[in-house]
Amino acid sequence: MKRLEERIRKDGKVLPGDILKIDSFLNHQVDVKLMDEIGEEFYRLFQDKKPDKILTIESSGIAIASATSRCFGYVPIVYAKKTVAANMAKEVYEAKEHSYTRNIEYTVQVAREFLSEGERILILDDFLANGEAMNALISICDQAKAKVVGCGSVVCKTYQPGEQRIKDLGYDVEVLARVKHMDDEGNIEFE
Amino acid sequence: MKRLEERIRKDGKVLPGDILKIDSFLNHQVDVKLMDEIGEEFYRLFQDKKPDKILTIESSGIAIASATSRCFGYVPIVYAKKTVAANMAKEVYEAKEHSYTRNIEYTVQVAREFLSEGERILILDDFLANGEAMNALISICDQAKAKVVGCGSVVCKTYQPGEQRIKDLGYDVEVLARVKHMDDEGNIEFE
Repeated sequence: MKRLEERIRKDGKVLPGDILKIDSFLNHQVDVKLMDEIGEEFYRLFQDKKPDKILTIESSGIAIASATSRCFGYVPIVYAKKTVAANMAKEVYEAKEHSYTRNIEYTVQVAREFLSEGERILILDDFLANGEAMNALISICDQAKAKVVGCGSVVCKTYQPGEQRIKDLGYDVEVLARVKHMDDEGNIEFE
Repeated sequence: MKRLEERIRKDGKVLPGDILKIDSFLNHQVDVKLMDEIGEEFYRLFQDKKPDKILTIESSGIAIASATSRCFGYVPIVYAKKTVAANMAKEVYEAKEHSYTRNIEYTVQVAREFLSEGERILILDDFLANGEAMNALISICDQAKAKVVGCGSVVCKTYQPGEQRIKDLGYDVEVLARVKHMDDEGNIEFE
């Protein structure tokens, strides 16, 4: 997605530890017009999958999923909640996610009532690096016997294993901006 | 807002401890069409305030603020981040928020670069109960010397002090659904 790549090149910041910070338009301050364009692109890529729901994860997935829902005729979105405490409540599906950025293990939860057997689920998230968050969301869908019809990520670092891991599990993965290299001088290259 | 009140009456759940749970359409599963209607209503109420930005708080404010941004010609949204740890970073404005629902004190943070002196800020949130979250967002705007031009909440319990507290500080407060009474049988009455 050209406009997204241009924006990342212009406003993205490369921080020590191979971190790409795009919080001026995606995950702290949000450019909602860009989110709408992202939603249209995910719709173009996944329209034949006919999802019943979009599943994402708080907080940075919410604006993306909202914009995409609108393009899919307002299918409901569900955002998984992250908690550091692991309270094994009966009424939730849950999975672990290890965040490499923060070096924390999260428990990711979705209330059982919001995922049903046989539902067609489109999973969307902002970043796909090692695939931990995406994997947690897939696990939650499996527990609910819901069907994952596609996995979309706004940004992916192609030199990290996440995208291939999810594809190896047999899922259809689409990424809007594929970073193949970045360095401490702030240069960001796309595939 | 009639359609919102009907939805709360139909799908809201009253939990022990005077908690109104509306997570089937607002803060876990999200009805994006309803969010768009909420955005239009906030636009109607605040259009003469001409905000430069919308400030909200993760996670449940994000879908609301996104929908409202669109009506205001895509003004940027900024969502404050909540953290339990108080890391006094220099590059953020921060304020404390005590959550009565969870009995936790949060530190609410906004990166300094995303709020500027003189900017006209519309603050939006999902719930206004004791006004703790709204107060924290106002404090952050004050630190940035930004001008709060209005405060909007989707739901408010009118028997709790939040709304009056914020009005007493001199702010223009608008609420879309005003709960005046609810009980353990699940009855919810609006003003």
